[in-house]
Amino acid sequence: MSRPTTSAAVSSPGGAASTAARPPASALPTRSVLAAQRRSAELELELAREPHRFRVLTGDRPTGPLHLGHYLGTLTNRVRLQRAGVEMFLVVADYQVITDRDVAGDVRGNVRELLLDYLATGVAARGDGGAGEGSATIFTHSAVPALNQLLLPFLSLVSVAELQRNPTVKAEAAAAKASGGRSMSGLLLTYPVHQAADILFCAANLVPVGQDQLPHLETTRLVARRFNDRYGSGERLLSEPEALLSPAPLLLGTDGAKMSKSAGNAVALRADEDETARLIRSARTDAGRHITYDPVRRPEVASLLLTAALCAGTTPEALAGDIGAGGGAVLKRTVTEAVNEHLRPLRERRRELEGADDLLRGVLAAGNQHANAVAARTLQRVQEAMGMTY
Amino acid sequence: MSRPTTSAAVSSPGGAASTAARPPASALPTRSVLAAQRRSAELELELAREPHRFRVLTGDRPTGPLHLGHYLGTLTNRVRLQRAGVEMFLVVADYQVITDRDVAGDVRGNVRELLLDYLATGVAARGDGGAGEGSATIFTHSAVPALNQLLLPFLSLVSVAELQRNPTVKAEAAAAKASGGRSMSGLLLTYPVHQAADILFCAANLVPVGQDQLPHLETTRLVARRFNDRYGSGERLLSEPEALLSPAPLLLGTDGAKMSKSAGNAVALRADEDETARLIRSARTDAGRHITYDPVRRPEVASLLLTAALCAGTTPEALAGDIGAGGGAVLKRTVTEAVNEHLRPLRERRRELEGADDLLRGVLAAGNQHANAVAARTLQRVQEAMGMTY
Repeated sequence: MSRPTTSAAVSSPGGAASTAARPPASALPTRSVLAAQRRSAELELELAREPHRFRVLTGDRPTGPLHLGHYLGTLTNRVRLQRAGVEMFLVVADYQVITDRDVAGDVRGNVRELLLDYLATGVAARGDGGAGEGSATIFTHSAVPALNQLLLPFLSLVSVAELQRNPTVKAEAAAAKASGGRSMSGLLLTYPVHQAADILFCAANLVPVGQDQLPHLETTRLVARRFNDRYGSGERLLSEPEALLSPAPLLLGTDGAKMSKSAGNAVALRADEDETARLIRSARTDAGRHITYDPVRRPEVASLLLTAALCAGTTPEALAGDIGAGGGAVLKRTVTEAVNEHLRPLRERRRELEGADDLLRGVLAAGNQHANAVAARTLQRVQEAMGMTY
Repeated sequence: MSRPTTSAAVSSPGGAASTAARPPASALPTRSVLAAQRRSAELELELAREPHRFRVLTGDRPTGPLHLGHYLGTLTNRVRLQRAGVEMFLVVADYQVITDRDVAGDVRGNVRELLLDYLATGVAARGDGGAGEGSATIFTHSAVPALNQLLLPFLSLVSVAELQRNPTVKAEAAAAKASGGRSMSGLLLTYPVHQAADILFCAANLVPVGQDQLPHLETTRLVARRFNDRYGSGERLLSEPEALLSPAPLLLGTDGAKMSKSAGNAVALRADEDETARLIRSARTDAGRHITYDPVRRPEVASLLLTAALCAGTTPEALAGDIGAGGGAVLKRTVTEAVNEHLRPLRERRRELEGADDLLRGVLAAGNQHANAVAARTLQRVQEAMGMTY
C-alpha cells in the first residue's frame, strides 16, 4: 500500500485497484493472511446458509466518481452480499477526505456522484422508494455526531505507539519524511480508531477488505476487546468484527500504473461510451503482436483481457485465444465493447437517477436518520458502561 | 508541569496547585509569558469596562472533590468574573479523565462532587432556580456530541508533529519512556484539539489559564486560524480566544509537595472542620521555632501563612508577625481557624445542596441542553463552510 486512501472498513477508491495485476515481488502470503483466507472461505459458507446473521459495514471516501476498478473490485461484491440477504451499512466517509489533503474540495458534488454510483450499481437503499426490506443504510460521517463521539472513548483504548505501527500510518509517515513535505495530520493518525467507531456503532460483524486492509480491522478488534475488558463487567458489549477477504480482480490503469481517479487512467462508471472507447484506445500495451494472457510478463495486456473477460462473462485465456493475431487494435475494440455492453444498463439507470434530486436527498436523509438512531443507542450503552450517565 | 492533568482550557484539579510555592529554579518568564501578562492586565481593564463582551470557557476533570488549592486558585476567580458580568461555560471534562488512566472510576460520583463544589462556591448556573440572567452553562463533554464531532475536522488541521511538541504531551511521553510503563494514549495526544473544540464551539474569547497552560491555548488559536484560512472564504468563522493569566497563589500540600487529591495533602472543600483541623495539624513545617514569611527558604511555613492570610483577608507577613514566637502549633491553629471560618458559609451551602438531587440534575440538564444547542449551531456553520451539507 503506497498511500493511505481510505478507512479500512471503507474500501478505498484507490483500494480496489491497489491489488494491482502485478503481484508484488516479495508478497508471499503471511500466516495471518492465510488464516484470513481460510476463515473467509468458511464465512462464505455461513453467508450462504444464514445471511441474516450478518451485518456489513463498508464504504468509500467521496473524492471523485467511482471507476471500473471499484466496480469489479468492491461494488459488485457488495451488491452480491446484499442480494444474498446481508444487512448493509455504507458510509460515505466525508471527514476522511481531509486525512491527507488540506481541503475537502467539491465534497458535495462527490457525495452526489458516489450516491449515483451506488444506486446505479444496484444497491437497494433505505429511502430509495423500494420495498425497504433488506435496504442498505447509506450515511455520511458528518451527519452522525453520536458515531463520531465514539472516537473519544475509543482513543483512550489505543496507544500512540500502536497507531504509529499501523501500516498505512507508517507508510504515510515515511512518505512525508522522504518528501520533506507535508507532515501527517492528527486525523490520519487516528483514522483507524474512527473506523473502529464506524464498525462498532452499528455492530457490523463482517467487513469486506483487501489483504492490505487486514491490520485496520485488527485495530477495531482491539478496541472492542479492550472496551469489553475495561467496562464490560464480563459482558461482551462490543463484538469483534471479522474480515471477509474479497476476491478483487487484479486490474491496472490504462497507463499500466495503479488505477486512480486523479490519474485519469480508469474508466469512470459515469463516463459515456465514446469516452470509454477513447480511454481504452489510449491504453498502454506492449510490442507483442500476438495477444496472450500472461499476467506476469505482459501485465498491461493481461489487465485488459481480464477486464473484458469479467464484463463479458468469459475467461481472459479464452478471449486471448479469440483475438490471437488480431493484436492490440482488436484487443482494445474487444475490451471497449465488453465494457460498454456490460455497463449499459448501469449507465442508463445512472442517467435516470441524475435527474432525481429528491430521491438522492431522500436516500441520504433516510440513511442518516437510521444511522443516527443506531449510533444513539450504541453511544447510550457505551456511556452506561463507562458510568457516564448523570 | 510534571504530568498532564487536564484540558488547557480546563483548569486542572492538580493545576491550581501546580503553580507551587517554590518558584522553579530556572523559571524566568519568557518573552511570550511577559506578553501574556501585559495583555492580561489590559484584558482586566476591558473586563471592568465591558464585561458583556466576554465569554469564558473553563472547567475541570471529574477526578475527585476540589480542594483549597482549586478554590483559591481558580474557583474564586471564576466567581469574580461571573459576578462582573462575564458569560461562562464550565465543562465537566469527563472524557478527559481517561487520557492518562485506564478506567473512568466513579465518574458519576465525581461529577456530582464537582457540581456541589461549583454551586457551593457561588457559581450561578442555568437550571439552579436563580434569575437565569448571567447564569453559567455547566455541561459534561459526553453529553454534547456536536462538540465532540468538531474534533474530527479540527484534527485535520494539526499535524502529529505539532501535537507531539505540546509541552504536556512531551512531558507525558518522557514520563512513559522513563518509567518503561504505560504508553501515551491516542486521547492524550489529541486532547489539545479536543480543548480547541471546547473553546471554539461556544466562541469563548477568554480562557483563564496558568502560565504553563499557555501552549494549549496556542493550539486552539492555530486551529481557528487554519480553519478560517482554509474554509472561511475571507471570513473569520472561528475567532481566536485570548488567555487571561490568573493570579493563582502559590500553595503547597500539607506534605510540602504539590497539592493533589490523590495524595490526601490538601483540604477538600467538602471536608468538615475536624478533618480540616487534623489535616492542617499534620502539615509539614520546619525546625525554625520563630514564624517568619520566607517563601524561598521556608516554603511550607510560607504556604500555611499564605493560606491563612487569603482566608482571613490579611497578609502573610502580618500573620507571621502576630504569631512570631508562638511557633508551629499557633501557626497551625491560626490556619485551621482561618480556613474553617472562611469556608463555613460555602460548606453550609454545600451540605444543603447535597440533599438537592433534583437541583443538581436540573443544573446539568439545563447546561447540557444549552451546550447542545450552541454546539449544533457551530457545527452547522462548520459543515456549511466545509461544503458538508447535502
